[in-house]
Amino acid sequence: MTERLVIVGGDATGMSAAAQARRFREAPDLEIVVFERGHFTSYSACGIPYWVGGHVRERDQLIARTPEEHRARGIDVRLRSEVVELDVSGGRLRSRDLATGVETWSGYDHLVLATGARPIRPGLAGIDAPGVHGVQTLGDGEALIAALAAGTGRRAVVVGAGYIGVEMAEALIRRGYEVTIVHSGAQPMSTLDPDMGALVRDALRGMGVTVVGDSAVTEIRTGDDGRARAVVAAGREYPADVVVLGMGVVPETTLAAAAGLPLGAHGGLLTDSAMRVIGHENIWAGGDCVEVLDLVSGMHRHIALGTHANKHGQIIGANIGGGYATFPGVVGTAVSKVCDLEVARTGLREKDARAAGLQYVTATIESTSRAGYLPDAPLMTVKMLAERLTGRLLGVQIVGREGAGKRVDIAAVALTARMTVVQMTTLDLGYAPPFSPVWDPVLVAARKAVRAVGERG
Amino acid sequence: MTERLVIVGGDATGMSAAAQARRFREAPDLEIVVFERGHFTSYSACGIPYWVGGHVRERDQLIARTPEEHRARGIDVRLRSEVVELDVSGGRLRSRDLATGVETWSGYDHLVLATGARPIRPGLAGIDAPGVHGVQTLGDGEALIAALAAGTGRRAVVVGAGYIGVEMAEALIRRGYEVTIVHSGAQPMSTLDPDMGALVRDALRGMGVTVVGDSAVTEIRTGDDGRARAVVAAGREYPADVVVLGMGVVPETTLAAAAGLPLGAHGGLLTDSAMRVIGHENIWAGGDCVEVLDLVSGMHRHIALGTHANKHGQIIGANIGGGYATFPGVVGTAVSKVCDLEVARTGLREKDARAAGLQYVTATIESTSRAGYLPDAPLMTVKMLAERLTGRLLGVQIVGREGAGKRVDIAAVALTARMTVVQMTTLDLGYAPPFSPVWDPVLVAARKAVRAVGERG
Repeated sequence: MTERLVIVGGDATGMSAAAQARRFREAPDLEIVVFERGHFTSYSACGIPYWVGGHVRERDQLIARTPEEHRARGIDVRLRSEVVELDVSGGRLRSRDLATGVETWSGYDHLVLATGARPIRPGLAGIDAPGVHGVQTLGDGEALIAALAAGTGRRAVVVGAGYIGVEMAEALIRRGYEVTIVHSGAQPMSTLDPDMGALVRDALRGMGVTVVGDSAVTEIRTGDDGRARAVVAAGREYPADVVVLGMGVVPETTLAAAAGLPLGAHGGLLTDSAMRVIGHENIWAGGDCVEVLDLVSGMHRHIALGTHANKHGQIIGANIGGGYATFPGVVGTAVSKVCDLEVARTGLREKDARAAGLQYVTATIESTSRAGYLPDAPLMTVKMLAERLTGRLLGVQIVGREGAGKRVDIAAVALTARMTVVQMTTLDLGYAPPFSPVWDPVLVAARKAVRAVGERG
Repeated sequence: MTERLVIVGGDATGMSAAAQARRFREAPDLEIVVFERGHFTSYSACGIPYWVGGHVRERDQLIARTPEEHRARGIDVRLRSEVVELDVSGGRLRSRDLATGVETWSGYDHLVLATGARPIRPGLAGIDAPGVHGVQTLGDGEALIAALAAGTGRRAVVVGAGYIGVEMAEALIRRGYEVTIVHSGAQPMSTLDPDMGALVRDALRGMGVTVVGDSAVTEIRTGDDGRARAVVAAGREYPADVVVLGMGVVPETTLAAAAGLPLGAHGGLLTDSAMRVIGHENIWAGGDCVEVLDLVSGMHRHIALGTHANKHGQIIGANIGGGYATFPGVVGTAVSKVCDLEVARTGLREKDARAAGLQYVTATIESTSRAGYLPDAPLMTVKMLAERLTGRLLGVQIVGREGAGKRVDIAAVALTARMTVVQMTTLDLGYAPPFSPVWDPVLVAARKAVRAVGERG
């Protein structure tokens, strides 16, 4: 008997789940229908800054697999179809064809919720004015690129100083704009501790970016033509020919909430290890609309990141297909690049450790990502947190230049393995002068953290 | 009462041990004497190819700490003093002043053997001719640089295709030489499996290097002036204006062997976890003259690498100083760069796994070290070995371009933690388009390895 898998959302999680389920179960056995309210499937939202900045020439390069390619594998992709209601007890959902407005009920045997995240967009005066751009969807990217091409001004204001904010700052610099980042935190990159965020701030300023912290945006001022002309924050006005919003995202769980599915403290769906929604045998969820277990703190978090979304999709697809796969959780790794600055983090910041009830020591060191005697050996700063008493690694933050960022993976694996900083001091890491000083900076940080653990007892 | 620490060898292990012991114990409490037969202390032999190639301008940039700097910390460094006999039962050793020939006996309370490794230099006709160069010591580097500066020819032959051989090939290319690598193995980089070595061979050829495998050198032919003019291997002659030997090294344990200290199957000293020579309470050894435990195979290996030598020195110094530190072993990580080619390995090759009695599966994948949609996303190949049945990670080899090499650290930490390839598939590695595809190549390899383990059962 044919079973029916219905997937809500056609990006990373949804289409990975579809493709993986299809690998396990052929078309006559499993019918797969995907409802996607947008125009595209399987695209890299993370790539939008590189498209805007001109590294990537065409939109379609960001599309890993088109609807046609999915359809050729027997996946019924329905674009511009928004799911507007979920009837869990009835095992069905109501979708609306956005072109015609026609609504239809469809039944499912298995349901995957892959509704992603929604950009934070506070209800400020002027926020919907022409000239104010999000960078969440390919449509957003197209609109921004068109605006940049048409625009004559040269001043850009980026609201928000997270990953998207700083990556967009680079993109706008590459387009020849004078860039101001206005953000509400003490330092940019609030995913880092403030002392490390200050290094990012200094580096951004070194690139010619004006960085304005402690300044929540209160208004977007418009000109006589109705277009955005300035951002107002903390009582000051920052003139803008273009405004880019990068204020973070929240899980898009409107549909799930209305259907009574379990949500966590961060508004994301709660799942078990197999990515099945808690308490619902045939409903699965993954990607930016779920919360994940933080393996370091033992608490749940919301992390919108393509790499998790893809893993979730694979796992869901395998499980629906009759295989077996689980997602153990995350350690909170993230990396970003702004011009030649590399910024990375994994595990807990100081405030995360405190929130988790963990006492900790910190160690911060400066080193280089190549042997110091090589010309222009790139500088890097590593901050490490270790649990007091046990010495368990709790987190690492890195700010540096070429070769710095991906070193965070060393710590990501060590966190997964619950290593102590003592264990880390003897890790057998790759050494050769073009890659590392004889003591890798991560090892130098570990040695200092060991001493700090010893001092605190 | 003053104790006396005597150290044989003034490079990485010896001077690290001295410096660390001094941090723990002040001068009146611990006298520290170092015998070094050369002219220098604490230098980076690994940096010699970069000095020859012109990345590093001056010899002294490779010297991390001069004898004078060590002396200023109360370490009695005696240069050009060779230890020629060790009397273990008497707790003393005999040294020779190489300038005067005067020999002296010195007693010790603690002894550190840090005698390093000796380059393999087969007794071939012509091997001692002018124009044949080793690259082991700073003196070797100086002699080679002088020869290159004075030479008028443009043909270089490198004997050996290990790390030093390929790094020297790059250096000689940078000096404008036509480079031929002659080596005895089927493929260059015998620290990799042959299938991965073949990728290195192809890349070297792409750089214009002539690579001649399966060709053991039998003679260095000299001209009428007595200088080397060709290398003969497998019956063929390779004209050479300069010959560089990079045939590997063996532990320098002549002194230790004569004194009856325990040596392993590879000729290196055997120590306990604290780096104390087995059965000798007050004799320590580390660096290139010892064997180390391979944590993956459970067997002992000889690995001459500055990063281990430095760790050993720190550990020995701490233990002599009354602290406590241990060296758990290695997983066999190494990384190298030839022009823009990055080559890395960790854990076991296929033949190592067989020698250790381990049954394994392999998985090889091609990917990129950045998101594939970015321009010129650098290609990389990852080969992974996993134990049959258990799925434990056994080894990883990487050949690729920018961003490929240091990814081996992910596997190095995973090997240390004895992770399975299933566990590796969900590692939370740093993702952003300039750093990685959404599935890091190491994860892609792990997924393929999982399937291979499943197939073999």
